[in-house]
Amino acid sequence: MQETLSKDDFLYMAVAERFENQIEKNILKTGDKLISLRALSKEQGISISTAYKAYIELENKGFIEARPKSGYFVRFSPSQYLKTPDSPKPSSGLVKVDVEEMLRIVYKTLSQEGVVKLATATPSRELIPEAKLNKAMMEAIRRSPNSCTAYEDVQGNLTLRKQIAKYAFNWNGNITSDDVVTSQGCMEALGFCLKAVTQPGDTVAMESPTYFGIFNVMTSLGLKVLEIPTDAETGVDIEYLENALHTNPVKACLFVPNFGNPSGGLMPDHRKKQLVELLAKHQIPLIEDDIYGEMYFGKTRPKTCKSYDKEGLVMLCSSISKTLAPGYRVGWCIPGKFMDKIISIKLNSTVSSATPTQAAVGLFFETGRYDLHMRKMRKALHTQCLRYIQAISDYFPKDTKVSRPQGGYVLWIEMNKNVNAFELFEKALQEKVSIAPGQIFSTDARFTNYIRISFGAPYSEFIDKSLKKLGKIVESLR
Amino acid sequence: MQETLSKDDFLYMAVAERFENQIEKNILKTGDKLISLRALSKEQGISISTAYKAYIELENKGFIEARPKSGYFVRFSPSQYLKTPDSPKPSSGLVKVDVEEMLRIVYKTLSQEGVVKLATATPSRELIPEAKLNKAMMEAIRRSPNSCTAYEDVQGNLTLRKQIAKYAFNWNGNITSDDVVTSQGCMEALGFCLKAVTQPGDTVAMESPTYFGIFNVMTSLGLKVLEIPTDAETGVDIEYLENALHTNPVKACLFVPNFGNPSGGLMPDHRKKQLVELLAKHQIPLIEDDIYGEMYFGKTRPKTCKSYDKEGLVMLCSSISKTLAPGYRVGWCIPGKFMDKIISIKLNSTVSSATPTQAAVGLFFETGRYDLHMRKMRKALHTQCLRYIQAISDYFPKDTKVSRPQGGYVLWIEMNKNVNAFELFEKALQEKVSIAPGQIFSTDARFTNYIRISFGAPYSEFIDKSLKKLGKIVESLR
Repeated sequence: MQETLSKDDFLYMAVAERFENQIEKNILKTGDKLISLRALSKEQGISISTAYKAYIELENKGFIEARPKSGYFVRFSPSQYLKTPDSPKPSSGLVKVDVEEMLRIVYKTLSQEGVVKLATATPSRELIPEAKLNKAMMEAIRRSPNSCTAYEDVQGNLTLRKQIAKYAFNWNGNITSDDVVTSQGCMEALGFCLKAVTQPGDTVAMESPTYFGIFNVMTSLGLKVLEIPTDAETGVDIEYLENALHTNPVKACLFVPNFGNPSGGLMPDHRKKQLVELLAKHQIPLIEDDIYGEMYFGKTRPKTCKSYDKEGLVMLCSSISKTLAPGYRVGWCIPGKFMDKIISIKLNSTVSSATPTQAAVGLFFETGRYDLHMRKMRKALHTQCLRYIQAISDYFPKDTKVSRPQGGYVLWIEMNKNVNAFELFEKALQEKVSIAPGQIFSTDARFTNYIRISFGAPYSEFIDKSLKKLGKIVESLR
Repeated sequence: MQETLSKDDFLYMAVAERFENQIEKNILKTGDKLISLRALSKEQGISISTAYKAYIELENKGFIEARPKSGYFVRFSPSQYLKTPDSPKPSSGLVKVDVEEMLRIVYKTLSQEGVVKLATATPSRELIPEAKLNKAMMEAIRRSPNSCTAYEDVQGNLTLRKQIAKYAFNWNGNITSDDVVTSQGCMEALGFCLKAVTQPGDTVAMESPTYFGIFNVMTSLGLKVLEIPTDAETGVDIEYLENALHTNPVKACLFVPNFGNPSGGLMPDHRKKQLVELLAKHQIPLIEDDIYGEMYFGKTRPKTCKSYDKEGLVMLCSSISKTLAPGYRVGWCIPGKFMDKIISIKLNSTVSSATPTQAAVGLFFETGRYDLHMRKMRKALHTQCLRYIQAISDYFPKDTKVSRPQGGYVLWIEMNKNVNAFELFEKALQEKVSIAPGQIFSTDARFTNYIRISFGAPYSEFIDKSLKKLGKIVESLR
């Protein structure tokens, strides 16, 4: 049934069109806040309901978005936008190319002074509520019967574990403090889990591309890596994995289903369920790195694989290193049926985690400060994400493709095949900009024309200039 | 040439004899302070020089001791004293008896409420300058450009490393901050070192008896343990080790030359030199656990094996867990030529150590607070040591033998062959006293009639009663 257009319809469409033009012409920029419905209604002499319809129209078209309790914001202008990157398949079989040298060079730049660090996926100082965290530290020490000088329980600070269990409720996790063990950051937790379920020589399936640090961890444990192609929209290729399981003796999987690094992809919840069921069938433990899980831009916290875990085979690992304070080294693990093994491994490596930092974070959670902080941080990161994408689409060659992360910290950028990312990295460093070249995100260095850029730092003129420089270098390398 | 005795000589000998009698009769107790030379001179109507001679006489006989800037104290009364324990040879070859179950039970009691914990070798609360440490923490956070929330340098906090290098001067260590890498406690440092120089299946030589936690670390790394008998007076049996090297493919040694746990022995400095030379000849790395090195009762800081290391083969590990704050998890390693390997291992396990705790301890060192604290702590521990020995010689059967540690925290006690230490442990626990049974200090559970007692807690009526109870149980088990 075809509807006829009322006067009202013409009105809201006209208003929407005006906004659309402003966005297209970049007068309204990505991340800008639109005036309130009430103000729009007053300004245009239209009813609030008409103003609402105009914004809905713009939202449906993807130009703007509503953010809970904040109003409407410019999302993106499709015409200016680049495509999303492809995901090339890994070389068949198990390949081990040495990317150590590149890694070492990239690591080195991370501590260089005076460099714009688009390579680091850590929260920038502006996003951290330092004063409140310091207060939590003082208060935690004051409350402790021994000023936090004594050994903490091996399993971890009880207040902190209770809060982690409470937070798990947001992803349908039905757990208690007994199910949680703390660690010195997420990396230690991942290491514990790998040690608990593998032996040297075993094969572990991982996403590709993936966080480069983990390859060295694998090597140091004598493990082989089987790379599973991962799509930025749908996550790990489950069908590829299922086939691979027939020919490879996979002992464990290590995946980052929520906003994996560097692709920023979000595995849809039904795919998580499917993955958990597949692995349960083969009785293969899944180590789930959920370090970015709380940094979602959407309306609700994405589920985890652990949400669907019935057999205790999923070992969820996370930390506050990406959301609050990397230097505190506070992480944790919800290891399902491997708890006893993990505790024993912890006892034999670092005995127990530091008392004051755990206590401070526990209190920061308990007082609701973390909740508040995360709400602000999600908003800030979302805006930053859109601003960075906008700048890249403005400054990079038109054949550039960029990811559309729904959470996390990083953009994954595919450039023209002729651009060598490591060369770009070196040239950019001369201009005092550091990026992460794609080569270091796989064992066979195949992402030669990809780079990862972090949008952890608030957008500024300085960042803008850096991205402009970067775009010019990419252009010169094509 | 025989000297005749002057009137003066008779005088000081008479005065000394009077003190001797009081000590023998327990009127003057171990740890009691003697009146000053000036007061003694006045009281007895003798010259200060005569009073001085009397004290020197008593000191030479081992009844009293001079403590720098504190005066003279009752040391011990030989007649009441027990012998020192024997050191039975380990079973020939490599034995692996599972002492895990005992260990697990002992560990469990460590966190039980209302139990007098003579089993734990950690500083008791009274010995820790909590308020000053808290102040250092606040100040460190205040001084940090990011409130200690950012990742610390992988090698560790620079202030802390500089201070560790400075402290090394006391044992003749000629090192700089570049030679130090920090860790999460001494255990992590030991683990790093073991990983750096061994592969699963390798054999590592260790003292016997030794700290039980380390056996599990060895097992978790797939290493075999070769136990080397260790004398409480002279440390590791170097000749036994030299012979063992001919028949065993020893890949590394892990020794505690200063106040090893549980024997409390101090390897004489010339033996350290000898050991380092022997291992250099065989190019075998020595992991030196010096966690107790600063807790000496004598006049000077004992040297370390690292003091004699010319080839960078000695990897010294230590921490503040036994002297200041176990819960801070601040340790370090001076790994000689293995520095690069250690950094790479650290990067792949815990990435970097916690920022605030390292910064706080660095500052605590830098401001001279640690120095001051250690001077007080050494004195307190020395007195506690003597008091505990006295009580044991009072309350335990006369065939008991007890170690005479020259530093550290613990007494190693050999009882009648009929006494089973694990049975004693269980019976004592019923009386709310926890001790460490000898079985857990070797891989073949051979120290069945030994126990370890910590004198970390200041002597009190409560401790006195607990030791009395313990003595009665030992008596009943003979």
